[in-house]
Amino acid sequence: MAAQKSAQSPQRSLRRNAPDAARRSERSRRAIYDAALALVSEVGYPRTTIEGIAARAGVGKQTIYRWWPSKADVLLEAFLDLSDQASELVAGPGGERQDDIPDTGDLAADLKLVLRATVDELLNPKFEAPWRALAAEGLVNEQIGTEFVAKLLEPSLQLYVRRLRAAQEQGAVRPGVDPRIALELFVAPLAQRWLQRTGPLSYEYTDTLVDYALHGIAPR
Amino acid sequence: MAAQKSAQSPQRSLRRNAPDAARRSERSRRAIYDAALALVSEVGYPRTTIEGIAARAGVGKQTIYRWWPSKADVLLEAFLDLSDQASELVAGPGGERQDDIPDTGDLAADLKLVLRATVDELLNPKFEAPWRALAAEGLVNEQIGTEFVAKLLEPSLQLYVRRLRAAQEQGAVRPGVDPRIALELFVAPLAQRWLQRTGPLSYEYTDTLVDYALHGIAPR
Repeated sequence: MAAQKSAQSPQRSLRRNAPDAARRSERSRRAIYDAALALVSEVGYPRTTIEGIAARAGVGKQTIYRWWPSKADVLLEAFLDLSDQASELVAGPGGERQDDIPDTGDLAADLKLVLRATVDELLNPKFEAPWRALAAEGLVNEQIGTEFVAKLLEPSLQLYVRRLRAAQEQGAVRPGVDPRIALELFVAPLAQRWLQRTGPLSYEYTDTLVDYALHGIAPR
Repeated sequence: MAAQKSAQSPQRSLRRNAPDAARRSERSRRAIYDAALALVSEVGYPRTTIEGIAARAGVGKQTIYRWWPSKADVLLEAFLDLSDQASELVAGPGGERQDDIPDTGDLAADLKLVLRATVDELLNPKFEAPWRALAAEGLVNEQIGTEFVAKLLEPSLQLYVRRLRAAQEQGAVRPGVDPRIALELFVAPLAQRWLQRTGPLSYEYTDTLVDYALHGIAPR
């Protein structure tokens, strides 16, 4: 998967024509991300240190400090990179990045597709442990939590806001509905089941959430 | 609030007629719960120890071990007791325990009432830090998480299941709807906003969740 990521990354053109030094830099950066995510998964956020990341990545501490001012910054970029890899897993048939939620004109089908892909991501061991460690730290450390939400979670929620606004223009969502609240009806249950292990994740489950959110649980 | 709790607790009759020893036991038990919750809030679950709880509560370690086999057991009971206190905050007008969600025949009004009370609880500093510490540990420690869900979270979710089943019998919820999934449409968004600080909590917000969940976001 890391190879797949590199082949599609913005650094591709840089790497092709790069001198050895740039290629080494890219290798170091990748090793640092991998080490940071592995460490945070194993020992948790508080006990992850720049020294530990450097030792595990096989680079000097100064290499890390040259690129990032603090542990929080390395980890945030490692998570942003992991998040990019997750997006690529749900890439379109041509391999393009899936930055927007598809709009086929069928809101239910589009939401179900994206939530099914999210189920796959959440059950992927590559993402499970580091995301969980970051989320746990965010609960008790307000600064990390706020940054995590602002830079990682909220941008992905805004994709739903855009798709629901388009649906409102198409008449598929009632005009008075607040899209930022509406998306929580299907996103938050999935997040809670995954984070707190309150129930199993399945395509059937996320499909049901979409149906209930669109049509309500009261009789029509 | 602790005094209010004692006045209403099942130990009341015991305490009234109790010999000094029983009264001392009850005082120690309360001191141990308070110490356990304060410590877990301040240093987190992993660094909370029986020794630390005993020192803070002003009791001997053996007093704790006589009643509970492990740190996990003391903490679980301290949280169950805290949860009882939270339930009493939403006690009925006669001061009775509010174990069931009210059934006035108006599902929307009943759900809004209970969710507004939950907003009050979640914003109460007495509950905020210890619940957050326990939830954070539950994310990364599967055993604690599973026990937390089974003994604390799921029983409170089952109150919604019962209320939604009654609503189905009354024709206020569609027959095919799974109540255990349906409740997540309003409970999980509130939990996520609180835990991950993804947005403000207010009565208006929880009222909106109930309206969207009952009537859907698609045009009727």
